[in-house]
Amino acid sequence: MSDASQDTERHKHKMANRKAVQDAEVAEKTIEKGLLIVNTGKGKGKSTAAFGLLLRGLGRGLRIGVVQFGKGAWDTGEKTAIEAFGDQVVWHTLGEGFTWETQDRERDVAAAERAWGKAQELMADPSIRMLILDELNISLRYGHLDIEEVVADLKARRGDLHIVVTGRNAKPELIEAADLVTEMTPVKHHFDAGVKAQKGIEF
Amino acid sequence: MSDASQDTERHKHKMANRKAVQDAEVAEKTIEKGLLIVNTGKGKGKSTAAFGLLLRGLGRGLRIGVVQFGKGAWDTGEKTAIEAFGDQVVWHTLGEGFTWETQDRERDVAAAERAWGKAQELMADPSIRMLILDELNISLRYGHLDIEEVVADLKARRGDLHIVVTGRNAKPELIEAADLVTEMTPVKHHFDAGVKAQKGIEF
Repeated sequence: MSDASQDTERHKHKMANRKAVQDAEVAEKTIEKGLLIVNTGKGKGKSTAAFGLLLRGLGRGLRIGVVQFGKGAWDTGEKTAIEAFGDQVVWHTLGEGFTWETQDRERDVAAAERAWGKAQELMADPSIRMLILDELNISLRYGHLDIEEVVADLKARRGDLHIVVTGRNAKPELIEAADLVTEMTPVKHHFDAGVKAQKGIEF
Repeated sequence: MSDASQDTERHKHKMANRKAVQDAEVAEKTIEKGLLIVNTGKGKGKSTAAFGLLLRGLGRGLRIGVVQFGKGAWDTGEKTAIEAFGDQVVWHTLGEGFTWETQDRERDVAAAERAWGKAQELMADPSIRMLILDELNISLRYGHLDIEEVVADLKARRGDLHIVVTGRNAKPELIEAADLVTEMTPVKHHFDAGVKAQKGIEF
């Protein structure tokens, strides 16, 4: 046998083993459930990954709700794009912008409560199969909403409803209740090199 | 002045300061450029955040290319969803699946080279304003493509082209060349609790 064909055989053997391990791992997982997903951390991609899941869910025919706790009246690319899907997405932007824009705590609390009311409504609607609570972590962090009440409602979600929560500084109580938690960590950021926010990237 | 109104005043003052700092930071950033973005790490959300950017870019009217290096013939939700945008997305799935599925290194190398050729074609097409190279990091990690050639081409991209590269284990040469690098770190994963891959979430 030549060296090259020995290498090929070794590679095949190694990869066959790896595939067997992977297949066995997949076979062990049998539970289906509505997941509570949290994207947190200081890096980019928390909301963006939530909207990637929205796109995936749309392709699977799921009806999806979005409640934005922080974005105010921003006109974002993703909001325009989902118009192509008509009634398959229910979108509510109820935040008044971040608190350092409004500089009025009472108004922030009222906005968070309105947004949370809308979230509860969508959680109760059986046609909704995925719900994105964008920047909810910010409202929780500033104490605009009660963490215990919010977590209790999230835990009581229907078995066929996936919920995605975004925002930095996720509370420990939320992480404890979640099925999937990912931390987005910045390694390098173009803002540090003087690059501005651009259409299609930041908004 | 009551305690409550003193608190309100203090809050307004603090938030006004924070806004002033933020406004000054935004004003300093003046450069517009096509970004090289890398989503890496062992956590979820690398490809998903790339597809969130795709959705945002679509809403901004950008024409977008996607080349998948790793997914084989998987029928994914995001691929179905973008059919709503017709010719605004050019989608190529050229990977033959992960190497432990094919167990044939020569075939993997040939598939990676075909995918890279398609990426070069899209980079040369001035109508394309965003290009997603999904799981390119895997092909680079296994040495299916030459890192120096790939990085040289990526650096030579047009000034109005954003490129998004995904996959764990991004090479240091790629990180060095990138404008924005985010590491997705798993904090908690539902597979560890026996939950299976579900439609609309994993595929």
